[in-house]
Amino acid sequence: MAGSSFGKVFRITTWGESHGPAVGVVIDGCPAGFGLEEADIQVMLDRRKPGQGKYSTARAEEDRVRILSGVFEGKTTGTPISLMIENRDHRSADYSAIRDVYRPGHADYTYDEKYGIRDYRGGGRASGRETACRVAAGAVAEKLLKELGVTCKVRPVMIGGIPAEEEKTVRELLDAAVREGDSVGGTAECIISGVPAGLGEPVFDKADARLAAAVMSIGAVKGVEIGDGYAAAGSRGSENNDALRADEAGRISKLTNHSGGILGGITDGSDIIIRAAFKPTPSIAKTQESINSEHENVSLSITGRHDPVTVYRGMVVMEAMAALTILDMMLENMSAQAENVIRFYGNRK
Amino acid sequence: MAGSSFGKVFRITTWGESHGPAVGVVIDGCPAGFGLEEADIQVMLDRRKPGQGKYSTARAEEDRVRILSGVFEGKTTGTPISLMIENRDHRSADYSAIRDVYRPGHADYTYDEKYGIRDYRGGGRASGRETACRVAAGAVAEKLLKELGVTCKVRPVMIGGIPAEEEKTVRELLDAAVREGDSVGGTAECIISGVPAGLGEPVFDKADARLAAAVMSIGAVKGVEIGDGYAAAGSRGSENNDALRADEAGRISKLTNHSGGILGGITDGSDIIIRAAFKPTPSIAKTQESINSEHENVSLSITGRHDPVTVYRGMVVMEAMAALTILDMMLENMSAQAENVIRFYGNRK
Amino acid sequence: MAGSSFGKVFRITTWGESHGPAVGVVIDGCPAGFGLEEADIQVMLDRRKPGQGKYSTARAEEDRVRILSGVFEGKTTGTPISLMIENRDHRSADYSAIRDVYRPGHADYTYDEKYGIRDYRGGGRASGRETACRVAAGAVAEKLLKELGVTCKVRPVMIGGIPAEEEKTVRELLDAAVREGDSVGGTAECIISGVPAGLGEPVFDKADARLAAAVMSIGAVKGVEIGDGYAAAGSRGSENNDALRADEAGRISKLTNHSGGILGGITDGSDIIIRAAFKPTPSIAKTQESINSEHENVSLSITGRHDPVTVYRGMVVMEAMAALTILDMMLENMSAQAENVIRFYGNRK
Amino acid sequence: MAGSSFGKVFRITTWGESHGPAVGVVIDGCPAGFGLEEADIQVMLDRRKPGQGKYSTARAEEDRVRILSGVFEGKTTGTPISLMIENRDHRSADYSAIRDVYRPGHADYTYDEKYGIRDYRGGGRASGRETACRVAAGAVAEKLLKELGVTCKVRPVMIGGIPAEEEKTVRELLDAAVREGDSVGGTAECIISGVPAGLGEPVFDKADARLAAAVMSIGAVKGVEIGDGYAAAGSRGSENNDALRADEAGRISKLTNHSGGILGGITDGSDIIIRAAFKPTPSIAKTQESINSEHENVSLSITGRHDPVTVYRGMVVMEAMAALTILDMMLENMSAQAENVIRFYGNRK
Repeated sequence: MAGSSFGKVFRITTWGESHGPAVGVVIDGCPAGFGLEEADIQVMLDRRKPGQGKYSTARAEEDRVRILSGVFEGKTTGTPISLMIENRDHRSADYSAIRDVYRPGHADYTYDEKYGIRDYRGGGRASGRETACRVAAGAVAEKLLKELGVTCKVRPVMIGGIPAEEEKTVRELLDAAVREGDSVGGTAECIISGVPAGLGEPVFDKADARLAAAVMSIGAVKGVEIGDGYAAAGSRGSENNDALRADEAGRISKLTNHSGGILGGITDGSDIIIRAAFKPTPSIAKTQESINSEHENVSLSITGRHDPVTVYRGMVVMEAMAALTILDMMLENMSAQAENVIRFYGNRK
Repeated sequence: MAGSSFGKVFRITTWGESHGPAVGVVIDGCPAGFGLEEADIQVMLDRRKPGQGKYSTARAEEDRVRILSGVFEGKTTGTPISLMIENRDHRSADYSAIRDVYRPGHADYTYDEKYGIRDYRGGGRASGRETACRVAAGAVAEKLLKELGVTCKVRPVMIGGIPAEEEKTVRELLDAAVREGDSVGGTAECIISGVPAGLGEPVFDKADARLAAAVMSIGAVKGVEIGDGYAAAGSRGSENNDALRADEAGRISKLTNHSGGILGGITDGSDIIIRAAFKPTPSIAKTQESINSEHENVSLSITGRHDPVTVYRGMVVMEAMAALTILDMMLENMSAQAENVIRFYGNRK
Repeated sequence: MAGSSFGKVFRITTWGESHGPAVGVVIDGCPAGFGLEEADIQVMLDRRKPGQGKYSTARAEEDRVRILSGVFEGKTTGTPISLMIENRDHRSADYSAIRDVYRPGHADYTYDEKYGIRDYRGGGRASGRETACRVAAGAVAEKLLKELGVTCKVRPVMIGGIPAEEEKTVRELLDAAVREGDSVGGTAECIISGVPAGLGEPVFDKADARLAAAVMSIGAVKGVEIGDGYAAAGSRGSENNDALRADEAGRISKLTNHSGGILGGITDGSDIIIRAAFKPTPSIAKTQESINSEHENVSLSITGRHDPVTVYRGMVVMEAMAALTILDMMLENMSAQAENVIRFYGNRK
Repeated sequence: MAGSSFGKVFRITTWGESHGPAVGVVIDGCPAGFGLEEADIQVMLDRRKPGQGKYSTARAEEDRVRILSGVFEGKTTGTPISLMIENRDHRSADYSAIRDVYRPGHADYTYDEKYGIRDYRGGGRASGRETACRVAAGAVAEKLLKELGVTCKVRPVMIGGIPAEEEKTVRELLDAAVREGDSVGGTAECIISGVPAGLGEPVFDKADARLAAAVMSIGAVKGVEIGDGYAAAGSRGSENNDALRADEAGRISKLTNHSGGILGGITDGSDIIIRAAFKPTPSIAKTQESINSEHENVSLSITGRHDPVTVYRGMVVMEAMAALTILDMMLENMSAQAENVIRFYGNRK
């Protein structure tokens, strides 16, 4: 119940602090018998790796994933898949500067309030490092989704208020932010294609609700939209409703996709469209006002190298969370119709 | 797993179709011993009632809630609270016109794809009528929250692109929409005050993630924000980080509340701020293009009286969902610290 | 979390006290599209009905089940099935005699300790009446199981230490118990046939563990065995291991079934065998020593008509719980193999 | 959902195969702030260690537990505690002899039926090795339980039909079993003292149901009893009901404890008594008849050193499972009364 698990059928549990010996994830409920090796996971982990883009953290993080269980002779066995990523050089740093200070925009104060204790080394459990485990698990989900004809793609939309495709302007903005010891926010979009109609559950577990929770559980995300999202709020029913049309062969298509592939919480077979708003990186060099654990006012400047924008790394996590959610709903949906259950057990032998 | 339940400790399960004999909700895990009577629930149900505002549906819906279990001599007993609201005149209407047609913007097509069968009378389970049960359960949650010093308030922000406080302009817009057989969308905001710091769980069950799922599970909602939300994406770290300050007595306050009361997924003691984008009512009189269950192209115009905007009724549901989530997190949080557990069982006798 | 729900995919939630207006159950996750009507459920409820056997309570209980949702035009729709059974004459009795007394062998004292409040009318939530809802839900499960080739049968084994088939001796024993204001215990056995191999999950959700929980959740049950159970504890490995044999066509059979159809927590395709020990009815006319809510010593004699033995009615509940568990595991098992998932979504269009 | 997790608030997830690189467990929901170090866990792991008794397996298993997360400066932080135990020499053995054979009494056949694939090295996930993780997690639970005044004790009751305290006779029996290439079963009892009244939930999550599931999830267990268990089935109500008495100070006691400390599924404050029946070790040297994965009949003799009885090691696992269950129910129970919730949040600041 303490919230380190995600998913119902394809269920993951992550563990680990940024500066402990390792971080990891256990996947329970992964279907048996499909090919999986460490390289499948490493590819996606590398996409999240710092230093990928000029503006991602340059810390010497090298994430090597190990499969500790659940895979035998190159195939999943149906039993829990335990993945572990060791943290390098996790003992060396000196954290005395932030030990007693509550960094603004961070979880330092809230963890102390919740638990009465906090691993103050680099964010501990609240660190973005935890998301490496989500990406590792997401890679497993995407491998199986691919065999089911489903693909996930993510892209940055806006960086600090500038369209992400205007790369030169974005670069100037980020250079300026770094120079000023500041950071910027942004938005990203994830599109999932090939999703069958019928996924999601009618009421509280609507596909939109589950995707929103998945994406909003990423530390930096403060807003989520499905389909037209906020634009729909300014639209008219006659514009926002997607017309359904059938061709001569009876094949159905939607003339538009304002709904983002979900109607009444259930997928309609068109692309799922999710967008997220990422807040600016809270770790900035600029001097900030805050308090310490003695409740005294202090000034602080956060040193070290931090991404000036969380979108590039965060959107890989967003893709992983979307993939985990879609796969989970696909597995969950298999028992929705009695006819399919009867066919499954009838055909079984 | 089929998603008609919500919450972990304070857990509700809703049931019922818009045109069946009744709708209802079972609340499991409600703490024992606080005063509850039908009138406590009726008050909040009445706020959601059609005909409250000029633009809410004028159908003769009269929601009388009955408490069937879990309350004894005016107090909750800790056992499941079953609430039921009968549907009036549910047998009378003629649904042959929409029986085989997939209404655009509705769940008709997706339910048929998921289940191979659908209760076609007025939306069945996908109808907004289901939300009456959420409001009833939310009223129970708010009653207890009040004793815990927590209050929830909701207000419309934008209606069809116009600030909600410009009532005259909004009225003209809605009148025009009705005349044109069309509808508009809008946004609403919910603020929860008095929430203790420390609620929410670090990773997947962050307070933001759970609130986002809660609100996005409302049929008409297509976007959710916490705190500054999308505005944070265009902001700088130095602006978006909320400075913490202590007064001479060591009392902590935040100078701003861009984070909406949540840091790292854990509440920080300031107001929780949630905003949602509602799509326009999909049921409109204007002629629309769609298909029928034979996959033939058809034109349709949806008759009957429908709200030209979903925000006014939807925001009461939003408040209910927020209240259910906050109370659930409060109950869940009681075992976070060993010291509190030891004190609880030590003090017990 | 408060435990009024059972099952993972086919999930039921019961509510109601023995002397409130009604009891009921919500089934969430029932596959859509199979035929269901009230009569299907009534048949099984009638098997549990008092007055069925000479020694079942003769109180004028008449259980009429109503389907309030989830069934449309005679078929399940995949949405929650709400079943309700009204309690007759629930207001009439005078409970002042037991209001403040803790009946030995009952939950009176423990409910007061847990909740600080208790519905003292006839047991409230702790009454056997709650099991009517399990039987109603079990009837739905058995209806679908039948279409999957699975059947459940239950029989009494021992009544008050006497083999249940020695009916005359059993009758004399029960007559004597009634005369003496006393009651007896007994055992029952449930056999489930046609169960496919492969159900259950390896570790904590072993088929045996889930069945044990299901049966032990019946108030009167104090012991559960799978297969040889306690006899296996006195057996040798060479005797207790079931030899597997194949005939010339490669069809597999077990020469014995000491394991009760489950190996390593997973069903092996042979009959599932469960046995349960029921304690004697705690409500007896004989004078007993106890205390009241003021913690004063009192003597009490429980009047009214009570079954002298719980086995006959309890075993119908046992069958219902077994059916609910088996069906749930069948639905859960559908996603165990990647190949089946791929075939399911490949075949879907 | 795939069943590698146990518990609701104090929730554990185990992973790992007997012959993979390691086995492990993640504990989510452990209260923050109590002292924990590897030595606390090692002590209990050592009690389970082979070679402890003459008749426990003499394989060179040396279980060193490592804490990988969730503990900082010697205290739990409230975040997931990841424990790992490496498997020694896991690559060396030759499993060709059992690779294609279904060992009687083992899960070989059922895993292949469920998953279509199986890690055939020494049982894989179905091996007793998995239980090391339960014992490690149980040690953490017992550490906290001790601070709550709760202690768990386990003892063997019968070994191969002989009272366990007749050590000489038992030794002769086991010597004979080893000589004959055979094994014996037995029973064990666990008593938990200091448990507060009020734990457990009324209906499906009765304390008895949860303990039964916990203990029955141990591979070798085929029967579970609470309190008098099967003896209650042969008893009379007047004998089996435990009389409650109050002394002059109003302190309550039960004159007997036939109920095993649980009434109506809720603990009554007296000792919890659980007994379990363990089947004989299925791995025996004696020649057995079985089939192979080609469905051909074969004879086999299982070589290697195996315990002639599972009780001695199994009962340590039983104690761990009981401790995990009791602690979980204690944490869950904290929100049962509104008054306690109000006091908790009122006292908080």
